Amino acid sequence: LKLLTLARDLRRRRARERQRLFVAEGVRSVHELLASPIRVRGALVVSQTDDNLHTAALFDALRARDIVTEHVTPAEFASAADTDTPQGVLAIAEVPDWSLASLPTVEGFRVLVLDGVQDPGNVGTMLRTAAALGAVATVALPGTVDLWNAKVVRSAMGAHFRHPALSCTSNELLAFLAERDAALWGADAAGESIDEVARSGPAPSRMALAVGNEGAGLSTLVRERADRVVAVPIAAAAVESLNVAAAAAILLYQLRQ
Amino acid sequence: LKLLTLARDLRRRRARERQRLFVAEGVRSVHELLASPIRVRGALVVSQTDDNLHTAALFDALRARDIVTEHVTPAEFASAADTDTPQGVLAIAEVPDWSLASLPTVEGFRVLVLDGVQDPGNVGTMLRTAAALGAVATVALPGTVDLWNAKVVRSAMGAHFRHPALSCTSNELLAFLAERDAALWGADAAGESIDEVARSGPAPSRMALAVGNEGAGLSTLVRERADRVVAVPIAAAAVESLNVAAAAAILLYQLRQ
Repeated sequence: LKLLTLARDLRRRRARERQRLFVAEGVRSVHELLASPIRVRGALVVSQTDDNLHTAALFDALRARDIVTEHVTPAEFASAADTDTPQGVLAIAEVPDWSLASLPTVEGFRVLVLDGVQDPGNVGTMLRTAAALGAVATVALPGTVDLWNAKVVRSAMGAHFRHPALSCTSNELLAFLAERDAALWGADAAGESIDEVARSGPAPSRMALAVGNEGAGLSTLVRERADRVVAVPIAAAAVESLNVAAAAAILLYQLRQ
Repeated sequence: LKLLTLARDLRRRRARERQRLFVAEGVRSVHELLASPIRVRGALVVSQTDDNLHTAALFDALRARDIVTEHVTPAEFASAADTDTPQGVLAIAEVPDWSLASLPTVEGFRVLVLDGVQDPGNVGTMLRTAAALGAVATVALPGTVDLWNAKVVRSAMGAHFRHPALSCTSNELLAFLAERDAALWGADAAGESIDEVARSGPAPSRMALAVGNEGAGLSTLVRERADRVVAVPIAAAAVESLNVAAAAAILLYQLRQ
């Protein structure tokens, strides 16, 4: 039961980082994975799930791609699973080798920067949004939850199986942006209204948009180095702020090219 | 231990609906609740949490408002709590008496309609977004998760302690919109691009925007009765769709008045 041991181990961030592997759990995630360019090392399935139509198609796909599949008991599966009610299938795959240097410099270059975002659901949603709105990549700075965390992978619905998603330090990001002549904008409730910013002229053609931690906002370094800090204007007294993934969606859409 | 029994009971939707009560759990949620116009019936606290600065301030606030507070053991608290790592404080409060008839007809009247949205985190995020972007109310149609579910309350971060949020049938909604002379727009990935819609002229001054189930989309009735179906344009082949809360944020922002 080598794959079971590996899947259990990969619940820890350190193990994922050392082995450069991650786990995608559930019928839909594994389907997305198999349809993507990501290399799959193996799959873990609960034997008695074969009777279901969805999983039958999935097992055919695993066989067609010659992917090593280990059969386990429901209790064994649960010991490796991240969900409370597991669907009985997961795959172990290689973390893609994306780097800042490999990102293309396209017209309307947009990068989403996660500056200490903690909630895996928020991070997964933002990966999906950045991919959908045509950002070149999503970059996680220190303090952000691991992009290959099981819940992030689930929430992203396959987004970062294709959309470049990578981690780096703030200094690496700043050097990259300088080298590509790209602006750094930050999102903060106290920033300039994005409406007024839009009225003041077109957004830079190359830009990274940074969103911060759910409680503390942007890090000091990003706040200091940002060329501009923008906000989604909010109805007075209704709520304190938008959810970070909702704000990121609105800002990325407003700043699209 | 009457409040403990009640709090345990209120984990079931049926009990919340019958008693018109809900539970707000955690330091932040209870703070938001106490600062809102909502009537609080009582609070449940774990005795040994007093030493914390945050909770001390909260206990002062509970005392100042003369709210019945029951002290319980950590195990008792956990039996009523919804979170895996409870903060040791929850409050039981009355579901506000909002109705369609009581909603004001303002200029730039916007209502967010949840048409079968299942994920409590998505619903909570959308309540927060609708409140932040100045919508008059959020209306949940049948098939949507209960607006007063503990996880919805937590994700909404106090939004629907002030922002009117209510449930009704599709027919009640349609009658209300007809009576207020308000349009019904639906959100669907196959709809008209919101960019083109914006170019074709101003949005109606009174409008409800409906978003559908995470998997199945809008209900047949809403789809049939919608005056217009709109979409956020998506980068080809990147992902299948946006998260429903991300799409709702972009559309509500684009359609704001």
